[in-house]
Amino acid sequence: MNIDAIRAAAQRLDGHARKTPLLSSPFLDEIAGRRVLIKAECLQHTGSFKFRGGRAAISALSKDIRAKGVIAFSSGNHAQGVALAAQDFDIPAVILMPSDTPRLKVENTRSYGAEVVFFDRATDDRDAICDDLAKARGLTLIRPYDDAEVIAGQGTVGLEIAAQAAQLGIEAAEVLVPCGGGGLTSGIALSLEADAPQMRVRPVEPERFDDVARSLASGRIESNAEKAGSICDAIITSQPGNLTFPILHRLCGSGLVVSEEDCLRAMALAFARLKIVIEPGGAVALAATLFHPDKISGDTVIVVATGGNVDTPMFTRALEAMTP
Amino acid sequence: MNIDAIRAAAQRLDGHARKTPLLSSPFLDEIAGRRVLIKAECLQHTGSFKFRGGRAAISALSKDIRAKGVIAFSSGNHAQGVALAAQDFDIPAVILMPSDTPRLKVENTRSYGAEVVFFDRATDDRDAICDDLAKARGLTLIRPYDDAEVIAGQGTVGLEIAAQAAQLGIEAAEVLVPCGGGGLTSGIALSLEADAPQMRVRPVEPERFDDVARSLASGRIESNAEKAGSICDAIITSQPGNLTFPILHRLCGSGLVVSEEDCLRAMALAFARLKIVIEPGGAVALAATLFHPDKISGDTVIVVATGGNVDTPMFTRALEAMTP
Repeated sequence: MNIDAIRAAAQRLDGHARKTPLLSSPFLDEIAGRRVLIKAECLQHTGSFKFRGGRAAISALSKDIRAKGVIAFSSGNHAQGVALAAQDFDIPAVILMPSDTPRLKVENTRSYGAEVVFFDRATDDRDAICDDLAKARGLTLIRPYDDAEVIAGQGTVGLEIAAQAAQLGIEAAEVLVPCGGGGLTSGIALSLEADAPQMRVRPVEPERFDDVARSLASGRIESNAEKAGSICDAIITSQPGNLTFPILHRLCGSGLVVSEEDCLRAMALAFARLKIVIEPGGAVALAATLFHPDKISGDTVIVVATGGNVDTPMFTRALEAMTP
Repeated sequence: MNIDAIRAAAQRLDGHARKTPLLSSPFLDEIAGRRVLIKAECLQHTGSFKFRGGRAAISALSKDIRAKGVIAFSSGNHAQGVALAAQDFDIPAVILMPSDTPRLKVENTRSYGAEVVFFDRATDDRDAICDDLAKARGLTLIRPYDDAEVIAGQGTVGLEIAAQAAQLGIEAAEVLVPCGGGGLTSGIALSLEADAPQMRVRPVEPERFDDVARSLASGRIESNAEKAGSICDAIITSQPGNLTFPILHRLCGSGLVVSEEDCLRAMALAFARLKIVIEPGGAVALAATLFHPDKISGDTVIVVATGGNVDTPMFTRALEAMTP
């Protein structure tokens, strides 16, 4: 896993993934006490950065293998990213989802042309179902983060950050990234190591799901006690990946942790000051920047807003959290 | 007023105004029955395209004149656009606002460094106050739309649309633009006449404030019976401008008119599908595209989303309008 794979992914994504803007607001600079630049991946196709990794992985397959189709397990952003990428290539996509997945997420994934197969969290063996389907139909599994081509695709966010920051004359910055399994964070870290070596990546997680922060502190992979139950569901994983953790450990600064309340307030400020929609998990890095400035160093911080797939009740709750 | 002025404004805005993205969603394409591309000017500095015109006009002043400062009358997007542009040049800005302007708008304008001077709508003569202040302090008036340099600045949106559409291989399209006094609409029309002559601009207005649509139909400047009272306040003017109307009349297709309810639904769909925040007046063109497809022709429509300065109660109202 190296920078060449990321540059190759960037070439394959050119003209397909959106080059998302780097936004800013003097009001946010003032709250944070430093210059804040927000990489708005919520404006990516399917509403999150996951389209990059999905498309990078599918485009890396040989034509014959690809034609048979792909399979993924996800109820969220990875599902939609893989589904749209498969649709673009006009190949089958099967998405495995827990049978209690909210209807809207199922419908969105189907709207991108994917076949949704349900499993019961309590009684079914997801991996066995996935294996059986993959073998029977010749489908290739697209993992959510612990896959070199997925990491390469997500890493293209880092290439864009380096180029966009350079245009603004910025060489040094802490780069705060919402972190689940670490695919995006490790990919960005590799890109910046090559193209902006004075930048340092800091993973950000919600309280009670700070496996990456603890793993970085201890130097080995640590797990969360809880498996679910955060409004930041998009970035909840039990532990960092076997491929991603060594990269995170080699390149990242210490992890940051924010509360759910911090996320809701950051979402409201992104609404008011940036005019973008961020989901709770996509807001952790902005939340750390705005509400924990003492944990960050330097004059400039670059924040990734990873996704915007939030439903109306949760978004309204965030807006009400800020109403005076 | 010609394309050279717009190209010159684009050079002066380079590196200062944001080149806003052209967004899309297959869900919106399906509703509209054609390809829809959204020019997201809500992501512009100060949350609306008005920064372009403000900065273009201020940057066109001679250095000595500019140093004395500028004055504008506006309670909304033009106020913030002029204030930030003046702050960038480190010159004084005086903004005249009605004394009943909502506190948040006053504070936002002050946050960009402007001095706010209030007048009473009922008893004061705004133009006389403006003249007196301008003479006493040597301030230059920056008009909201009926000014060649302001039109040139807003017209840079059209240059970007032409270039971004060409990258997607699109030459022909109807281009729907939210229209108040016509500064943005006429500027875009001039840009497209030069750079994308197969595109046709269509002004869009809210019901009861369709002065431009009626003026285009009759061939002369028509006024609205009402002066205020629309949630689309950002684009309410009594009639098209003396500079803008001849351009609109020469270059635009017929005007489109949408209801307030259409605007609220378009705002909710922009939230759900594009992850952007649009204000009611900024949503009229998207609303026409989604809910009046029979009034539009061609395979592709390009929509300008002009601004995102909407408060929480109004945005929540829009989201609730779409909740099943």
